[in-house]
Amino acid sequence: MNTHTPKLRSFASDNNAGAHPEIIKAVCEANEGYMRAYGEDTISEAADRLLKKHFGEDARIFYVTTGTAANVLGLRAVTRTYNSVICSSMAHINMDECGAPEAFGGTKLVPIPTPDGKLTPGMIAPYLGHVGFVHASQPKVISITQSTEEGTLYSLKEIEAIVDFARDHDLLVHMDGARLANACAALGCSFFDMTTALGVDLLSFGATKNGLMMGEAVIFLNPEIGEGFEYLRKQGMQLVSKMRFVSAQVERYLRDDLWLENARHANAMAKRLAERAGAIPGVEIKGEVQSNGVFAHIPPAATEILEKKYYFYVWDEHSHTLRWMTSWATTEEQVDEFVEDIKKAVEQVR
Amino acid sequence: MNTHTPKLRSFASDNNAGAHPEIIKAVCEANEGYMRAYGEDTISEAADRLLKKHFGEDARIFYVTTGTAANVLGLRAVTRTYNSVICSSMAHINMDECGAPEAFGGTKLVPIPTPDGKLTPGMIAPYLGHVGFVHASQPKVISITQSTEEGTLYSLKEIEAIVDFARDHDLLVHMDGARLANACAALGCSFFDMTTALGVDLLSFGATKNGLMMGEAVIFLNPEIGEGFEYLRKQGMQLVSKMRFVSAQVERYLRDDLWLENARHANAMAKRLAERAGAIPGVEIKGEVQSNGVFAHIPPAATEILEKKYYFYVWDEHSHTLRWMTSWATTEEQVDEFVEDIKKAVEQVR
Amino acid sequence: MNTHTPKLRSFASDNNAGAHPEIIKAVCEANEGYMRAYGEDTISEAADRLLKKHFGEDARIFYVTTGTAANVLGLRAVTRTYNSVICSSMAHINMDECGAPEAFGGTKLVPIPTPDGKLTPGMIAPYLGHVGFVHASQPKVISITQSTEEGTLYSLKEIEAIVDFARDHDLLVHMDGARLANACAALGCSFFDMTTALGVDLLSFGATKNGLMMGEAVIFLNPEIGEGFEYLRKQGMQLVSKMRFVSAQVERYLRDDLWLENARHANAMAKRLAERAGAIPGVEIKGEVQSNGVFAHIPPAATEILEKKYYFYVWDEHSHTLRWMTSWATTEEQVDEFVEDIKKAVEQVR
Amino acid sequence: MNTHTPKLRSFASDNNAGAHPEIIKAVCEANEGYMRAYGEDTISEAADRLLKKHFGEDARIFYVTTGTAANVLGLRAVTRTYNSVICSSMAHINMDECGAPEAFGGTKLVPIPTPDGKLTPGMIAPYLGHVGFVHASQPKVISITQSTEEGTLYSLKEIEAIVDFARDHDLLVHMDGARLANACAALGCSFFDMTTALGVDLLSFGATKNGLMMGEAVIFLNPEIGEGFEYLRKQGMQLVSKMRFVSAQVERYLRDDLWLENARHANAMAKRLAERAGAIPGVEIKGEVQSNGVFAHIPPAATEILEKKYYFYVWDEHSHTLRWMTSWATTEEQVDEFVEDIKKAVEQVR
Repeated sequence: MNTHTPKLRSFASDNNAGAHPEIIKAVCEANEGYMRAYGEDTISEAADRLLKKHFGEDARIFYVTTGTAANVLGLRAVTRTYNSVICSSMAHINMDECGAPEAFGGTKLVPIPTPDGKLTPGMIAPYLGHVGFVHASQPKVISITQSTEEGTLYSLKEIEAIVDFARDHDLLVHMDGARLANACAALGCSFFDMTTALGVDLLSFGATKNGLMMGEAVIFLNPEIGEGFEYLRKQGMQLVSKMRFVSAQVERYLRDDLWLENARHANAMAKRLAERAGAIPGVEIKGEVQSNGVFAHIPPAATEILEKKYYFYVWDEHSHTLRWMTSWATTEEQVDEFVEDIKKAVEQVR
Repeated sequence: MNTHTPKLRSFASDNNAGAHPEIIKAVCEANEGYMRAYGEDTISEAADRLLKKHFGEDARIFYVTTGTAANVLGLRAVTRTYNSVICSSMAHINMDECGAPEAFGGTKLVPIPTPDGKLTPGMIAPYLGHVGFVHASQPKVISITQSTEEGTLYSLKEIEAIVDFARDHDLLVHMDGARLANACAALGCSFFDMTTALGVDLLSFGATKNGLMMGEAVIFLNPEIGEGFEYLRKQGMQLVSKMRFVSAQVERYLRDDLWLENARHANAMAKRLAERAGAIPGVEIKGEVQSNGVFAHIPPAATEILEKKYYFYVWDEHSHTLRWMTSWATTEEQVDEFVEDIKKAVEQVR
Repeated sequence: MNTHTPKLRSFASDNNAGAHPEIIKAVCEANEGYMRAYGEDTISEAADRLLKKHFGEDARIFYVTTGTAANVLGLRAVTRTYNSVICSSMAHINMDECGAPEAFGGTKLVPIPTPDGKLTPGMIAPYLGHVGFVHASQPKVISITQSTEEGTLYSLKEIEAIVDFARDHDLLVHMDGARLANACAALGCSFFDMTTALGVDLLSFGATKNGLMMGEAVIFLNPEIGEGFEYLRKQGMQLVSKMRFVSAQVERYLRDDLWLENARHANAMAKRLAERAGAIPGVEIKGEVQSNGVFAHIPPAATEILEKKYYFYVWDEHSHTLRWMTSWATTEEQVDEFVEDIKKAVEQVR
Repeated sequence: MNTHTPKLRSFASDNNAGAHPEIIKAVCEANEGYMRAYGEDTISEAADRLLKKHFGEDARIFYVTTGTAANVLGLRAVTRTYNSVICSSMAHINMDECGAPEAFGGTKLVPIPTPDGKLTPGMIAPYLGHVGFVHASQPKVISITQSTEEGTLYSLKEIEAIVDFARDHDLLVHMDGARLANACAALGCSFFDMTTALGVDLLSFGATKNGLMMGEAVIFLNPEIGEGFEYLRKQGMQLVSKMRFVSAQVERYLRDDLWLENARHANAMAKRLAERAGAIPGVEIKGEVQSNGVFAHIPPAATEILEKKYYFYVWDEHSHTLRWMTSWATTEEQVDEFVEDIKKAVEQVR
């Protein structure tokens, strides 16, 4: 199977990398003997214990296989169909889940334009005018993404402000944590500081992008929500039979702070890329690099040259903004080679 | 992590086993370098090629992570919400998916009582009386399971009869193939013989129970159905980002007929168990063992004794029918030890 | 518009009749001046007051336009999608709503075969085996129809037994009351006796078949259920803007016991039809006539003759059972003429 | 029932009026004898014939009871769940249907901000960037409202431009015609000119606001769409049994151009109100009055005074914009009295 190994040089997404070798090792080790299926096994219990250390003893944890599933099922669990979920118009749930929240969750999204992927109470307030009006969807959840789809970060204070606002308006706060580890690494805080301590009610815990093969979870932090979710996950087609192969990854991810090491590395690679590429005349880095994504402008003709060797997204066609993602697997050499190639491409077209 | 390895002796389900060592090896090998996410990688292409060899060049293949997902999304793809799906009342879709076909598929099931999990045209015919009547769901699909939830097998002729009947009534045929490999091994036929050659329209291809960590797929065999399924899978929360880790398993499963070896072994272990346990006075094996499930009656008090050491299902409480499943991982020693323990337990309570 | 008035002689359904003249009059009278839309008008208030007299002060009332809507939305309000609703396999929700409970309610039905449309605790018990098992839909509601689709009646004692059984198993009881008035008239009891007094939790209140143009309602009798239903009705496309035209019908229906007069008349006409037709050699009336439906066997060739002049349903093709419904509008003369024609038709083919 | 007749003076909505006397008369006349239920009656046929005269012989017509039902079911009929519907963010489907398109239609809406409720190709184009991208909902329909929720009108040319744009992008055009008659009256064109002639694919035909008790319809103008809608309507809880009472209203509405007379009158009353109220110092009429809605600014304190006697909506709280709707039933005297009262209220607070 030599065809297994193409020489793709990817800055497209943190999910184009493979899994961290330690994760693969954990999966191999999980393959011993018989275990109860569907998560009633000792490995899943061990992973749960570690997650509770990070998120508090009240956390209830449900592994799923995709981030979309975590978002859709988590939100469905805490809403009735006449509720709405307020989010940034750039949110993954609004832009990148093919309408799953609406079609499989029955949830109305209220997308709010944001300059940088971050919501504030001031942006949300005007959308709360029809509470109690029977013709209007009733807002129930504010969903924020940390780090955001635009590579930005909410500070702890900003999250706190949203949680306070939510409490005042009888709303819940959901966090899409597909890149939560990168945010914690960048802000130098723990998972607990970022979520439970601030009063976040439920979390889509993401680990796939940060070095797992496949590992996502819905975590209810608020003990009063999420009743019956074990049925909803099964019904939502997400109750994996040989669950130990998912939870073994999560267990290893949390053990010895592998998650932090991976996230710090990815963030550092993004910084390196931004600094070195940003120094090239003709390249403009958009905003400060806060986690593991770099958003850049280069001449469109240079993009065409780079695309022959590299895979990445043109994030916004109108402004020709490129998105370059780094991951746990990105090496300094890869960054430097990429920077060199960017330089050549830009020079070639000037 | 010593707690990882309990000494569970399980005849509960073929998904209580781990993954075949060759499958684990394939997963490890898949972890090389960057690849496009979401199935646009070379490993997924290789797996697709092998599946097409088995199911025909027209087959369109979509990997998913659970059998429930394969069933629900496949059926949803070929129905409108006013259609119904005819199935055995014992079918997995009716009994073991927590209402997912209805709630996430919007599909009405028409469950038909069967003596042994197998439908026949004669059983289905009385349920087709309201075609064109606007008040009634319009039948669109007959769903059969091979091997059935009751451990029985449809012969090729029996499947053909159902397909012919379906064609006469403008219906599609869906096969839930969670244990398709066991059926092929038992009947000595290929995947193609059992499905495409007979005119089955769509298949839930299952491999997890037969030695994978996680590997299921929706396969459309009829070229005229399944349009837009790439969107439906994504929306159905089943588009795994690092898809290569799923497809690598499928690729290895099909390579060198690992699937057949595993299935034959599981079937042989079931036969051995049935023969030896059936010879014990006080134990009655229900029906002929056709694939990898053994259904048995023993005194309820003996069940209680066995449950201290073994994990298995009381399949039907009213008749006190037990279900013992074997798998690729079941050894002759395990069977013989189990038989010995059954014997002791039954003797003790007589 | 002379074509408006065909000379249809119908025993097909109680909804083939028009509306009672008093109902039409009430609609005309409701057409005075401006009123708030969406049920916040004085006529709707008056209708609510009368309904509360009949069903108790705790009743919460929501008008809708079809019986299907009352059933689907009421059941959806009291279930989560992983719940199931137990019903007779002959129930309107299972047979005559085109899969609406599944597709628009997301509800799994568990249809149970019954000899005469009536469930008993003994029939239901075997279907409650998987409570707490995550793979199985969790039963939440028993739905009964009074009078049943087969023309039979539950006695008060029989309903009480079902309610007691439901309480023991943490289930709710829903009553499809499309022909509730006929049942009350037949059993000589009030609406209250039949529902609230027995502990029925929610009711689909039907009046269209008994003399209205259009008038159905979801009524929650149990004060602990139905929260947020005002939103669910709106979302369920059933919040009629000029609601007074629906509620005015209900108000008149309950005033001066018009409902009872109509129902008694319909029942009496059914009795008359059954007695006189049953006396004809070659005609066999199936069971005792309990409300306003007559189920009969006649020679199929006689059916063909009758269908030239009359419109009615062949209820079961296999047994050639006919269903003849009477209504508030059926006259003695119509019955007698029909009996005469049945007699001629049967004689002609013998 | 004297309580039936409050002295509400309403400029809140055109659905606060009753029904036109001719409509009531038609309903009374429809109440003769037996007819087949569910729309298979001669009155429904006659109404269909008239609608086909107005919308073309290819039109397929399905009566429903609410505008929300017409919108939700029509859109559901022409989409798969992974499709999206593009609309103005002010559209009734986005703001006033309590999330019904999402929850009961499974449809993702893509709401686009508009200055005046009207979409243009230029506004829509930026939202079409992800066609063929599996992570994004695939646009399928552009939905426009005529007249809009903001009281504005699309010219025929503007609709044509949207249809042309839709054709170029393989999209369908849906028109929410809740106030279609007012638009036709204002622009001096026929229903046909406004819809079928321009290539509109499907229409929510509204008549309730223009003088009916209850009368809405889904009309498919494009002969290639809407297959199976008879089942979808039934499943959507909208197949009224005594359909003749709905279709009789529609038949009378179209006969002798009652629709046009009513709409012209409502529009004229709005113009009168705008002209006379607009002349009062301190009252500002927003934009030109194009159909039967007047949007105005007055001092908030004056609003409080007026609300003691009149019922109307504060349309936008931030700008304190009021909406005053007129209807077929609004009289010159009512307008003049209202103007007088506005004048007094404004003077009182200045």
